[in-house]
Amino acid sequence: MPLRYDTITFLSDYGLVDEFVGVVHSVIRSIAPDVAIVDLTHGIAPYDVRGGGLALARATPYLCPGVVVAVVDPAVGTSRRPIAVEVGDGASVLVGPDNGVLAPAVALCGGATRAVQITNPEVLLPTESATFDGRDVFAPAAAHLCLGMDLGELGPEIDPISLFPAMVPLTREEEGRLHAEVLWVDRYGNAQLNVDPDELEGYEEHVLLVMDEGQRSARRATTFADLDQNEIGLIVDSYGLVAVVLDKRSAAEQLGLATGSAVTIQALDEDRPPGIVTPVNLGPRR
Amino acid sequence: MPLRYDTITFLSDYGLVDEFVGVVHSVIRSIAPDVAIVDLTHGIAPYDVRGGGLALARATPYLCPGVVVAVVDPAVGTSRRPIAVEVGDGASVLVGPDNGVLAPAVALCGGATRAVQITNPEVLLPTESATFDGRDVFAPAAAHLCLGMDLGELGPEIDPISLFPAMVPLTREEEGRLHAEVLWVDRYGNAQLNVDPDELEGYEEHVLLVMDEGQRSARRATTFADLDQNEIGLIVDSYGLVAVVLDKRSAAEQLGLATGSAVTIQALDEDRPPGIVTPVNLGPRR
Amino acid sequence: MPLRYDTITFLSDYGLVDEFVGVVHSVIRSIAPDVAIVDLTHGIAPYDVRGGGLALARATPYLCPGVVVAVVDPAVGTSRRPIAVEVGDGASVLVGPDNGVLAPAVALCGGATRAVQITNPEVLLPTESATFDGRDVFAPAAAHLCLGMDLGELGPEIDPISLFPAMVPLTREEEGRLHAEVLWVDRYGNAQLNVDPDELEGYEEHVLLVMDEGQRSARRATTFADLDQNEIGLIVDSYGLVAVVLDKRSAAEQLGLATGSAVTIQALDEDRPPGIVTPVNLGPRR
Repeated sequence: MPLRYDTITFLSDYGLVDEFVGVVHSVIRSIAPDVAIVDLTHGIAPYDVRGGGLALARATPYLCPGVVVAVVDPAVGTSRRPIAVEVGDGASVLVGPDNGVLAPAVALCGGATRAVQITNPEVLLPTESATFDGRDVFAPAAAHLCLGMDLGELGPEIDPISLFPAMVPLTREEEGRLHAEVLWVDRYGNAQLNVDPDELEGYEEHVLLVMDEGQRSARRATTFADLDQNEIGLIVDSYGLVAVVLDKRSAAEQLGLATGSAVTIQALDEDRPPGIVTPVNLGPRR
Repeated sequence: MPLRYDTITFLSDYGLVDEFVGVVHSVIRSIAPDVAIVDLTHGIAPYDVRGGGLALARATPYLCPGVVVAVVDPAVGTSRRPIAVEVGDGASVLVGPDNGVLAPAVALCGGATRAVQITNPEVLLPTESATFDGRDVFAPAAAHLCLGMDLGELGPEIDPISLFPAMVPLTREEEGRLHAEVLWVDRYGNAQLNVDPDELEGYEEHVLLVMDEGQRSARRATTFADLDQNEIGLIVDSYGLVAVVLDKRSAAEQLGLATGSAVTIQALDEDRPPGIVTPVNLGPRR
Repeated sequence: MPLRYDTITFLSDYGLVDEFVGVVHSVIRSIAPDVAIVDLTHGIAPYDVRGGGLALARATPYLCPGVVVAVVDPAVGTSRRPIAVEVGDGASVLVGPDNGVLAPAVALCGGATRAVQITNPEVLLPTESATFDGRDVFAPAAAHLCLGMDLGELGPEIDPISLFPAMVPLTREEEGRLHAEVLWVDRYGNAQLNVDPDELEGYEEHVLLVMDEGQRSARRATTFADLDQNEIGLIVDSYGLVAVVLDKRSAAEQLGLATGSAVTIQALDEDRPPGIVTPVNLGPRR
């Protein structure tokens, strides 16, 4: 029997210390042994729906077509709906809780073409608990979709307009200042902003960053290595957004930035040339 | 050649920072390239045989039939025996050190139907060291079992009665008090007790938990969302045991609970209604 | 179409919190869906080229033939070359930055038989960024090699003699003292030295270790269990090198050792028998 989908991409906030991820793999393999599972990441912070949704969206252009399972689910066991959302007229299906974690990726794929609430008792694993829907609801639903089950067999159709929307912060330009926000700090301490490179078009090569912990000049650069030691850079990162970086060091740590931090980009004061505003020696690790 | 088993489920305390897990995968794939490996978890605390055995037991009902490799092995290189234990008359085989890490899972599978000590030099990898049996003993043994090697070819048969037993703590009921123990604290801070839901039958909806760090009232609930903010709950977790939880927060952190902590469940003092005993505002993170 | 190589072994400093590793898997699977990926480790410390190169070298004797992708790349986006290095006349190919991370493994495989710089725009993923070569350069190059692309199609041939060399510290023997260095501290706190067991031939069973934090006697032993509690051992570890260990405890933590720490091995003072030099009770965890 050929598979309808041969890949399940799996993201969660389960971490890798407990056996949750392994159990989900086992359930999928028990139902659909020939499906490959790509673990996108399980390091989303516990309950961080926005972080999970953004990580999934960043990866979306690179994913294999198939089924996506994304589980960051602070309201597991409540009336929030377990859903399966078809995109591209069936090119892929995204499975998870209806809390927004799927929404940015669905939007990037052109929006939902169909959606259902997962309720079919023949799909769900029998359990007396309501706390591990990754195992009991999403994994078996994904596996059955791979085997060819029609979306409509998972449960009643729901109007895509009723799906929980993506909450992506927008920048705001005001009096020549671009008010932005940190979307993500990666392992290396690069702080990705919600800023498209086009939005920086009116700005000089050297700009001023205003943050909660103070202000620093920064230079727009192409690669990390273009930066002098301790020089803060704004580069276009690997996902096409503007990131605040240092070469071989953590910009987030040096500047006190975390997910959600506000960063305002503005022109440098004309009286102050960049060489003076930029501190040559940044402080020690806080 | 069809495989005798097509799945190896792998649990260890190796962590994911060193290359130990990857090397074990490489060894298995070198011998039996068509076998799928499911990583249950490698985040068991170093040397925590009981924790590894309990994690494996929790996952057991969901595992694919096949070979299980479980390596938490503080006495590697000593006279403790490397073993392979058949369950279900060959439905699955569990491989690892004979120190109890396999025992709870073996018991859940109905007990050993056959067991051997792994000694066959044609199976073991040649090495001058005796410190990495996952690579040199357990991985090749598991791979050869998948290829169809008979259990008896791994080494001499041993009496299943001689296997290191499972050490699972039992509850004790005394004067209407249920003395329990924390088996496991998960990523979210839920503290699983060694308590079956049936054992709570004689208790009211509201009970008192007595712990080393003090006492708190708790409410028996079905899901996290049934709980008020800061209200401690006793819910049946996804493995069918009673867990001490908070909604969207770590109960273990708030109550100072860790694996092995004692928790006594008893009736609330009649004079003190639940609303008074439960602190409305729990303390800050310790 | 049969694959030229059916396994990609993958090591990086990406960590498992971000989605980097998952995206690389997705890119490989999109191009070469039938290739198996073995994750060796992604826990190399950020930018630690030497640590990545040593981990790869330790694993090399156990790896499946095929393609290796190793990405620890502090100079991503600069003129450092992305390379593919053939060993064993095509038995395997190692792919990564030309900064030394591949070099120890290449040397262990008998040296490069051919090498190219990866430049073919038909292989590279289109991107406006130069910060994620694992995704945009190394993953597609590895996948195309698996599908049968000739090494020469990846880009211009380069002289293997021009490759960045391996930097492996050598021991130095001086006046009966062996000056060594810690190569690696594993999860259990064992400190692997750059010392071959043969180098200890002239020494007694009991020796003195001189370290920055002081000196301690140590005993050459075969397994952890040969050691008394608190007795420091020198054992031949699972990779055939000498390691400083304690039984069931972290020697690195007790002795203040980290990667790169200097350790001098010398004869015990004849006046001081081992029982006196060895502290019976080591201090508490620092």
